[in-house]
Amino acid sequence: MAEGLKFPTGLGTSDADSISLLGQDLAADLMGKVGFGELAFWLVAGRRPNPGEVRLFEAVLVALADHGFTPTAIAARLTYLSAPDSLQGALAAGLLGGGSRFLGVTEDCGRFLADVLAAADSDDYDGIALRAVEEARAAKRFIPGLGHPVHKEQDPRTPVLIAIATEEGLYGPHLRLFEAIGRVHPQILRRTLPLNGAGVCGAALADLGLPVDLLRGFALLARAAGLLGQIAEERRRPIAGDIYRTVDRNAVYEP
Amino acid sequence: MAEGLKFPTGLGTSDADSISLLGQDLAADLMGKVGFGELAFWLVAGRRPNPGEVRLFEAVLVALADHGFTPTAIAARLTYLSAPDSLQGALAAGLLGGGSRFLGVTEDCGRFLADVLAAADSDDYDGIALRAVEEARAAKRFIPGLGHPVHKEQDPRTPVLIAIATEEGLYGPHLRLFEAIGRVHPQILRRTLPLNGAGVCGAALADLGLPVDLLRGFALLARAAGLLGQIAEERRRPIAGDIYRTVDRNAVYEP
Amino acid sequence: MAEGLKFPTGLGTSDADSISLLGQDLAADLMGKVGFGELAFWLVAGRRPNPGEVRLFEAVLVALADHGFTPTAIAARLTYLSAPDSLQGALAAGLLGGGSRFLGVTEDCGRFLADVLAAADSDDYDGIALRAVEEARAAKRFIPGLGHPVHKEQDPRTPVLIAIATEEGLYGPHLRLFEAIGRVHPQILRRTLPLNGAGVCGAALADLGLPVDLLRGFALLARAAGLLGQIAEERRRPIAGDIYRTVDRNAVYEP
Amino acid sequence: MAEGLKFPTGLGTSDADSISLLGQDLAADLMGKVGFGELAFWLVAGRRPNPGEVRLFEAVLVALADHGFTPTAIAARLTYLSAPDSLQGALAAGLLGGGSRFLGVTEDCGRFLADVLAAADSDDYDGIALRAVEEARAAKRFIPGLGHPVHKEQDPRTPVLIAIATEEGLYGPHLRLFEAIGRVHPQILRRTLPLNGAGVCGAALADLGLPVDLLRGFALLARAAGLLGQIAEERRRPIAGDIYRTVDRNAVYEP
Repeated sequence: MAEGLKFPTGLGTSDADSISLLGQDLAADLMGKVGFGELAFWLVAGRRPNPGEVRLFEAVLVALADHGFTPTAIAARLTYLSAPDSLQGALAAGLLGGGSRFLGVTEDCGRFLADVLAAADSDDYDGIALRAVEEARAAKRFIPGLGHPVHKEQDPRTPVLIAIATEEGLYGPHLRLFEAIGRVHPQILRRTLPLNGAGVCGAALADLGLPVDLLRGFALLARAAGLLGQIAEERRRPIAGDIYRTVDRNAVYEP
Repeated sequence: MAEGLKFPTGLGTSDADSISLLGQDLAADLMGKVGFGELAFWLVAGRRPNPGEVRLFEAVLVALADHGFTPTAIAARLTYLSAPDSLQGALAAGLLGGGSRFLGVTEDCGRFLADVLAAADSDDYDGIALRAVEEARAAKRFIPGLGHPVHKEQDPRTPVLIAIATEEGLYGPHLRLFEAIGRVHPQILRRTLPLNGAGVCGAALADLGLPVDLLRGFALLARAAGLLGQIAEERRRPIAGDIYRTVDRNAVYEP
Repeated sequence: MAEGLKFPTGLGTSDADSISLLGQDLAADLMGKVGFGELAFWLVAGRRPNPGEVRLFEAVLVALADHGFTPTAIAARLTYLSAPDSLQGALAAGLLGGGSRFLGVTEDCGRFLADVLAAADSDDYDGIALRAVEEARAAKRFIPGLGHPVHKEQDPRTPVLIAIATEEGLYGPHLRLFEAIGRVHPQILRRTLPLNGAGVCGAALADLGLPVDLLRGFALLARAAGLLGQIAEERRRPIAGDIYRTVDRNAVYEP
Repeated sequence: MAEGLKFPTGLGTSDADSISLLGQDLAADLMGKVGFGELAFWLVAGRRPNPGEVRLFEAVLVALADHGFTPTAIAARLTYLSAPDSLQGALAAGLLGGGSRFLGVTEDCGRFLADVLAAADSDDYDGIALRAVEEARAAKRFIPGLGHPVHKEQDPRTPVLIAIATEEGLYGPHLRLFEAIGRVHPQILRRTLPLNGAGVCGAALADLGLPVDLLRGFALLARAAGLLGQIAEERRRPIAGDIYRTVDRNAVYEP
């Protein structure tokens, strides 16, 4: 070791005979005994989740894994078409669309709810929600998690995730506030919007005690599985060439 | 729909009331009922795995999730230091190191074993292995999955993964050939190398019937969880600044 | 063409005999006649720059191309070590560090100056600067482009770029305001900070009439050249393995 | 400095008063005096090009900068749609398509020509070309740089780049062999294919003495400028939403 250098980590270390991860013996204690979602939770939160937490957490990941031909899925397929030798490049290209507009809602919603709760001084959720919606409207800001371009009445994921959280005893303040927003916002906004799936996932992840600044990371992990599915399908039954040609052949020059 | 355009998919589709994934109702049939690793397998393979397959598959993902301060982990941390506003960029930067040298071994080993098996005309695994090692040596090629820079005697993941495959009735021809290579290679190479963890994971994934051209994808999915752990730790207890300064302050100009 | 589909572009189109770019014949009018920096300016701004604008613009790109062992350069080298088969991945990994902290200053400074100018109602630059610094201080915000961790007295790029802009008749309101900030900030902040190179580049790009929302893009283009230089040097005289081992060997487990 | 650590570089270094790049004083010697393309050449090759070399090199970059709605351009636009807050992510996503199929031809062609020349023992270019085409055909390999999906008769870039190389005294063995392949291949392949623009760029870069393993890097640098143009146009006149909807609305479920 160079004098004075020290890089601390609580994650993986190894020596000639063993591999350690999170302070556990990887081979003896983790492989075959810990699920993949469970490990992902543990890696980020620094604590092992209980089975109910794993169920809710994996339900979130399943909900976010794939939404069909999103811009990110198309970008990954086009990149795989261009550079089939580099699967990691296609996956990375898809994940790079996980920003403010598409995958970001999960994190934005979790953070919004956490911020509102941190500033609240009562447990009157409908009252807290009412003020939060009023303030957002006054500031001309959208409420993250409210509304959906396709599921205009109800996002089918929302009641299911709330039911799972309730069954597992994990229905906490973020989900409670999110539902309150769903009840009260029509009074202010004069129309009724659904609580969307990305938003309810953010609320559930926040209730699981995961750091709100990293919620987007779970959406990205979920999407990594979905993108692999997209790339696998592209390999079996390619469509990226058709997408490319559809765009290229309908190009028109306009200065 | 524009006339004549059609983009088929067996993955996600949705309408106003429902979201479908893999032909299932996402909210009613998948969320809370299917694990995340199970879904990832299903998305890529196009078939739902049974519980034993899920256990073996998740053991592989757990084995590959994090190996400490690898180049990919360091690259992700440095990118997060530079651009903390873009978590997706830090994750993507880490995954882009999943190429031929580090994460590629899993895929290379699975493909090597599959190729050898496809060309074999007997079920004498030791004999097949002997010829494969002889041919590789004559062509001055390495055998993927053989040898490890740190675990010079034995990689602790290897016997554990083989035991799990055996318990679940999933010990198939790729693992069998891999073990045969472990037995016979000293006759040819004149030294004894361990069967490494990345290689045994490739053999197990191939025995699970997953497409060998996409095995790298599972290593990337596993690593996505590990990289989130690295980024979460970087956020709590940053070291990327120290890494950067260690390099920068020890820079010397040499034309 | 599918009925009704139309994708307009003013950039590249082609048919069997010719390739058109920006409304010009690529082969006959551009190749050998237009410089690369000139083309980059034209592609983004939608107008051909004059020779003085090209000189200032390329001076900015040269100033931003490489700053030695930055986090982005190290990330690119580590990614090349891990995946040498995918040069595009190493380059992309390096560029992904071009976010808010390192390469973002150029854009942040240009936008800050543009916003201040848009709100100003006089041409008293020192007065405008004074109010802008006061407001930033009251809001506890940093002034982008002010201060540098290494060049504590003066960033050598700043006076040179201002001199080039002046020589070419391109010293405009953004550079003027930037210099005014350099003069007046000690009155408010009670210490004298240098105007840094990334900031003066942002001011110059804004004076060139380039869109302030895309200034980061020029820093990225410049850095793409620098990263290629880093990767080329890594190929000739590798150090990424040493960086990796320096970190890995000095890892210590701390929960 | 930690004892024993040393990271040599011939690129950028700096101290409190000066910034050095390639052994030059960045502010005094490079800014305003060296063009951007010239610097990019210097960074990779480690030597300063002369004006004729700069002209040929920049003609290559101009030729490769943008080819309209390629998969990489579409991927960059879709990523910008999804994550407009992260310009670096959109640029990186576009570059990640710079792999074996699209941008890779430049490097593949340069390397192919260099390999053939390294094995040749005469200066009879037509004879060397004839054997190379025969061998490629026997091995069922394509000749990189031969043929184009759109420019079936002639790629307009090819004669222009050869003319520039000739004017600048830079018409060397790689371009000579490439032209010889253009003359002789119909004898073997029984049809006449054009020498394409990506290929002639690879030949010209190799004649400039640039390392053939890194030629893809120049295609990526050129494309970085083109992708910035695409992203700038997307910002002014967006089409990525239409592309996304065209695909999504024409999705059909097929298991």
